[in-house]
Amino acid sequence: MTNAAEALVLRSDRDGVATLVLNRPKARNALSVAMLEALRDTFESLATDDGIGAVVLAAEGPAFCAGHDLKEMTAFRTDADKGAARFARLFDLCSAVMMAIPSLPQPVVAAVEGIATAAGCQLVASCDLAIAGAEARFATPGVQIGLFCSTPMVALSRNLSRKAAMHMLLTADLADAAEAKALGLVNDVAATGSALAAAQELAAGIARRSAYTVRVGKRAFYEQLEMPLAQAYAHAGRVMTENMLARSAEEGIDAFLNKRTR
Amino acid sequence: MTNAAEALVLRSDRDGVATLVLNRPKARNALSVAMLEALRDTFESLATDDGIGAVVLAAEGPAFCAGHDLKEMTAFRTDADKGAARFARLFDLCSAVMMAIPSLPQPVVAAVEGIATAAGCQLVASCDLAIAGAEARFATPGVQIGLFCSTPMVALSRNLSRKAAMHMLLTADLADAAEAKALGLVNDVAATGSALAAAQELAAGIARRSAYTVRVGKRAFYEQLEMPLAQAYAHAGRVMTENMLARSAEEGIDAFLNKRTR
Amino acid sequence: MTNAAEALVLRSDRDGVATLVLNRPKARNALSVAMLEALRDTFESLATDDGIGAVVLAAEGPAFCAGHDLKEMTAFRTDADKGAARFARLFDLCSAVMMAIPSLPQPVVAAVEGIATAAGCQLVASCDLAIAGAEARFATPGVQIGLFCSTPMVALSRNLSRKAAMHMLLTADLADAAEAKALGLVNDVAATGSALAAAQELAAGIARRSAYTVRVGKRAFYEQLEMPLAQAYAHAGRVMTENMLARSAEEGIDAFLNKRTR
Repeated sequence: MTNAAEALVLRSDRDGVATLVLNRPKARNALSVAMLEALRDTFESLATDDGIGAVVLAAEGPAFCAGHDLKEMTAFRTDADKGAARFARLFDLCSAVMMAIPSLPQPVVAAVEGIATAAGCQLVASCDLAIAGAEARFATPGVQIGLFCSTPMVALSRNLSRKAAMHMLLTADLADAAEAKALGLVNDVAATGSALAAAQELAAGIARRSAYTVRVGKRAFYEQLEMPLAQAYAHAGRVMTENMLARSAEEGIDAFLNKRTR
Repeated sequence: MTNAAEALVLRSDRDGVATLVLNRPKARNALSVAMLEALRDTFESLATDDGIGAVVLAAEGPAFCAGHDLKEMTAFRTDADKGAARFARLFDLCSAVMMAIPSLPQPVVAAVEGIATAAGCQLVASCDLAIAGAEARFATPGVQIGLFCSTPMVALSRNLSRKAAMHMLLTADLADAAEAKALGLVNDVAATGSALAAAQELAAGIARRSAYTVRVGKRAFYEQLEMPLAQAYAHAGRVMTENMLARSAEEGIDAFLNKRTR
Repeated sequence: MTNAAEALVLRSDRDGVATLVLNRPKARNALSVAMLEALRDTFESLATDDGIGAVVLAAEGPAFCAGHDLKEMTAFRTDADKGAARFARLFDLCSAVMMAIPSLPQPVVAAVEGIATAAGCQLVASCDLAIAGAEARFATPGVQIGLFCSTPMVALSRNLSRKAAMHMLLTADLADAAEAKALGLVNDVAATGSALAAAQELAAGIARRSAYTVRVGKRAFYEQLEMPLAQAYAHAGRVMTENMLARSAEEGIDAFLNKRTR
């Protein structure tokens, strides 16, 4: 365990919003094994934290996240298997962290300033919502160093249209914040330096809602996305029925109807 | 049976286009059980009406549709099971109506003025095409009253990119007509008050085509969307072959070739 | 075999880029059986050509491609089965050519000037990337001649949002280059007459990368697109691990780290 000053992921809670800060600014918040484990542990702990209704994912320093830690990975090459086992474990861990975001009960809003590249771009794509500072930049540049961004493409290609995703993957070109918004990678662009505040405001709005309702809805969103239409409706219909029977809906609807009839 | 003046869904036919009008303006055209049954019956009757080549779905009054009828639903709570059975039947009925639109042989064009919220927004998302008046507004605000728009999300998330859909679902924010077009929820924006005329013109153009061809194409569109690429091509290839052997294609292609060679 | 002047598909290689030119300008490059066979053979030969890192698909004359050869197809009608067998074989062949593009190891960039309609529009949609000249126009107008663009819709509906694809298919309206970009059908718009040069520049940039890396990445892109999220990550993780063990990644990462530490 490390103390707060040394932690790779800082967490501070306020008004039902947990703000996570990637805290390895000198390495441009590269996703080392330790950083990925810190994220995994943080999400695990958030998953059962009933006091938290929404999460913001931000970063310390000028870069949001530059992706994997290539120096650490290169050191794996001295293993007898040339790193094969440790590479496989690293990518499994990384994918588990990325999938932990849609699996988390609470919505996660990325707050991006500076560059978000490779697995850093994947982190943004994996979040439920994202706000970019006006000078944020996004890329999947693995092709430049002979390592195609194949795991980042999983998240990227579920946010962008096919040709737009292919263009980022094949060219390594940086998309600026406005392009990222037009392509569907982020929801909004804030003034430079204001992405965190904007993301926290968005998250606070969500955290003020019924936590039960948000959790039920977020889970159903990702579940039904992967189903054919009729199955998706059957599932969502069951979710709606349960939701109607919950206290949050009963109270919310009563309050709405009473206000309307006053 | 009700007479036309009392009917919940008005229908008027002209030039091969059936215009349906949601006719419960004082309740902002809320989708009560009776309204859903009227829509279901109307679509069932249209499905076998060879005189109709396209359908427009519009609404009476300042609101397009405000979603479910919360007052009626609240009354279900007095049942011994607290409404569980009737809620489940309601959502089944609603989903059946929504799925009846892509299943209908004729294309359906929504003409939206005013607000289309919750299941009203889902109705727009479920249509094949949609025209919004310039002051139309769209939202999935269930989260505000503790009832997440889980069935509306099925249609919404098949029209919008993930983060855009998630944003509407989690924030309850209203999207204006221009945003709805940019996000993929509507095809075009017409001047306020002109959505119906624009939708009817679009529908009339479709109704002038070979009804067989349009029906074959619309059905294949939704079928192939849920298939992997190779299976989608195998299916669409069979559809094309049958279509080539139909009289509409033989006559249409002959006319085209003759005009070109004259 | 034909000589270059007569060939239906011209090929010229430069700097690792193979430029293919549809060469039937008087028939607006219609996809006759012979043209489809020439494309199939060209892609087959490119698939094993290690000297080629990217492909550009362009066209001779004012039209990019007007789709199927309706005159040739009409002649099939004199068969005893009214053409059924030959239509089925034609659509199978056409679909095989369209699927050969995502299956090709090298990325394919369409360079579109003039009209790309019906199966010609499908050809653009099937390419990994596309550049349109400013006056390029796109449509799926089969509905006008009684033959719905059912096979083109397979590619189109995997590039565009649902309602946008449906609009093109049901109205036969031409989308201009700017609209095609906004809809996701092309990546960029070049000045009229410059689409080929722009596509070649884009392709040359890709061809300068490690061919192994690009091939691995392109294949994984289309494979993971059709998988549920967890399966997509498991697959992409295996691909990344193999990629890390390849020489291209080892050298590329070493070069990157050395440059950074100098």
